[in-house]
Amino acid sequence: MPVNLPPLGELLPVDGIELGAAAAGIRYRGRDDLAVVVLGEGSVVGGVFTTSSYRAAPVIVASERLGKARALVINSGNANAATGERGLADARASTSHLAAKLGVTENEVLPFSTGVIGEFLDVDAMRQGIDAALAARSERGWEAAARAIMTTDTAPKAVSAHGRVQGARIRATGMVKGSGMIRPDMATMLAFLGTDATLSASAARSLAQDLAERSFNRLTIDGDTSTNDSFVVMASGRAGPTIDAPRGEAYAELRELLTPLVVELAERTVRDGEGATKFVTIVVDGGRTAAECLEVAYTIAHSPLVKTAIFAGDPNWGRFCMAIGRANIENLDPDLVNLDLDQVPVARNGLVADDYVEEQAAAVMAKDEFTVRVHLGRGQASETIWTSDLSYEYVRINAEYRS
Amino acid sequence: MPVNLPPLGELLPVDGIELGAAAAGIRYRGRDDLAVVVLGEGSVVGGVFTTSSYRAAPVIVASERLGKARALVINSGNANAATGERGLADARASTSHLAAKLGVTENEVLPFSTGVIGEFLDVDAMRQGIDAALAARSERGWEAAARAIMTTDTAPKAVSAHGRVQGARIRATGMVKGSGMIRPDMATMLAFLGTDATLSASAARSLAQDLAERSFNRLTIDGDTSTNDSFVVMASGRAGPTIDAPRGEAYAELRELLTPLVVELAERTVRDGEGATKFVTIVVDGGRTAAECLEVAYTIAHSPLVKTAIFAGDPNWGRFCMAIGRANIENLDPDLVNLDLDQVPVARNGLVADDYVEEQAAAVMAKDEFTVRVHLGRGQASETIWTSDLSYEYVRINAEYRS
Repeated sequence: MPVNLPPLGELLPVDGIELGAAAAGIRYRGRDDLAVVVLGEGSVVGGVFTTSSYRAAPVIVASERLGKARALVINSGNANAATGERGLADARASTSHLAAKLGVTENEVLPFSTGVIGEFLDVDAMRQGIDAALAARSERGWEAAARAIMTTDTAPKAVSAHGRVQGARIRATGMVKGSGMIRPDMATMLAFLGTDATLSASAARSLAQDLAERSFNRLTIDGDTSTNDSFVVMASGRAGPTIDAPRGEAYAELRELLTPLVVELAERTVRDGEGATKFVTIVVDGGRTAAECLEVAYTIAHSPLVKTAIFAGDPNWGRFCMAIGRANIENLDPDLVNLDLDQVPVARNGLVADDYVEEQAAAVMAKDEFTVRVHLGRGQASETIWTSDLSYEYVRINAEYRS
Repeated sequence: MPVNLPPLGELLPVDGIELGAAAAGIRYRGRDDLAVVVLGEGSVVGGVFTTSSYRAAPVIVASERLGKARALVINSGNANAATGERGLADARASTSHLAAKLGVTENEVLPFSTGVIGEFLDVDAMRQGIDAALAARSERGWEAAARAIMTTDTAPKAVSAHGRVQGARIRATGMVKGSGMIRPDMATMLAFLGTDATLSASAARSLAQDLAERSFNRLTIDGDTSTNDSFVVMASGRAGPTIDAPRGEAYAELRELLTPLVVELAERTVRDGEGATKFVTIVVDGGRTAAECLEVAYTIAHSPLVKTAIFAGDPNWGRFCMAIGRANIENLDPDLVNLDLDQVPVARNGLVADDYVEEQAAAVMAKDEFTVRVHLGRGQASETIWTSDLSYEYVRINAEYRS
């Protein structure tokens, strides 16, 4: 069960972006598993992709096709990863089919896949799914697409935002699918944000990087990085001033407008993390650099012993110390470290706090959402990430997935 | 249930080393939780300790007292970690009590603790336990001591070896306790090896490092590093030639004699890993350096998705690819990577092997012991580590420990 995952709110259509979904029968039965996104003329796409050495075929193809773009094709159930030359040919075959249907060039169509690694994609099924999804497409297709890209997600995750950039109205809607094999960088497997703002290709690329850095690159579920992680920003160019470069007021306004949207998508991804029963924010401050704050935060978030203590609601704060201690930080002085659970001081200067009452810490950890705050006592840097716990359900899902 | 953990075999007494155990009531009821080891005159102790920034009080004290030594005091149930100045004073108080009883100086007594982090040690209980353990001590006390140092271990783990060094008979017995919060460097929480060989302090220290590098630093259960990990070599100097330095034939002969003993202790630690249902050997070869082989091996071994697939016996080999891909190896070319499960070729040059039959891979992964072999195709280096799976039982143990 996800942790306080909000239901889908109203998803705003974005001018110049149509979405359709269909059941291609790639792996799942009785549900949509393929989505197409059709972009109007003049659209651009920026993106960031997995840092894995094993980049899936669609990641390789899509990352070569950033810039001017007219469509995306996304399937769930099969990641088309570790599939070599044939995988690349399969990814290209899907995009050339969609391109021909739309009368655009193949290089303007980007492929995305998520699901099982190491199996070949059924291209015939993809083609039929593409045809059906194209027939179903509309600017109101965000929810159907968000459902079609799910794998072990328990619910679709999509959010809209609107506001003004240099006085012009701008709309944006984004969707994401998790929900295991989730950590930076990238963190989401697949996330798509569409806006009617007007961006150059380079501005779209920078915007994708800036937004990922503030959202998807700050969450972790199980510390695993997928072969397929992708986040793309699609800009249809139907509204607002032309933003040519990743600087200036208009770029900054758009980035600030979209940041809460991607943070919300990232948080929903954690709330729907595999087997998650808790949503935990980890704040590490007092570090010398952002990098060392993140190192400590991720070491805490990835520790199986911390994650099981969180699952149990056990304020076994020694496990937090253990994790902080094994983070790769040079000359960390444990005698300067403070630890709080929400507002409850747990450790001060490396020792249990004078006024520590275990019942108070237990009450915090019994909640389904709380904040672990670590102060390193050696600088001014601060970072925040989000994570979930390690439950029986995580083991069940991942022991049974594929079976 | 541990994975094919052998029962205790005959434990050889080691001349000049006596052990005693007692129930001090530190945390557990109805079982021994404290051990003393008394070393004859002329004994030396070498050791290696956790790399955690949060070094427990006994680690700090013991690491300052390597060299000539006369006794060890070891307790389970409380790690005396994250306990600051009071923790140091408590560790010293236990050793000074034992030193006074033996008529030796406090600096010749080393403290070791394992258990819950962040709570103060009951020094009165320690003193009473020390008295009782001293009264019970004998050269036949290895098994009782191995039982007393257990925490979540399901069985005591101890092994003996004997052989010749420069023609002289040498004996050794070692014991170890796991069984979560286990990874290099160090990996064991606590391991103790006693031999009647004759070593200088510096040779003992080098021997501890050499042996740890071949055994405890090659295993991982959950990727967590404890605040208390310690491995010490105790040499009573009752047999064999005097080995003054970590070189020469006698040193090499002793190292080779003891290596199988510590490897066996390390393997038993994994077999008794928390919630372990599988014992998995991971071999990574074809790397440019040992370090990159280890990076790949540990990334595989720590991946929750790999560990749950191993638990399920599911030959979802894409998860191995995913883990190899996210290992931090520069310019790794997935198209050169091969993967085998025991003798079954799974992937060749980054792709599923031509003759791959999933039933064969499934048959391997259904076994309770098997080898995952990765060939990186870029060099001559090779490394081997041992790990276990991630089961419901791991979650249960760690969600309930302390409760």
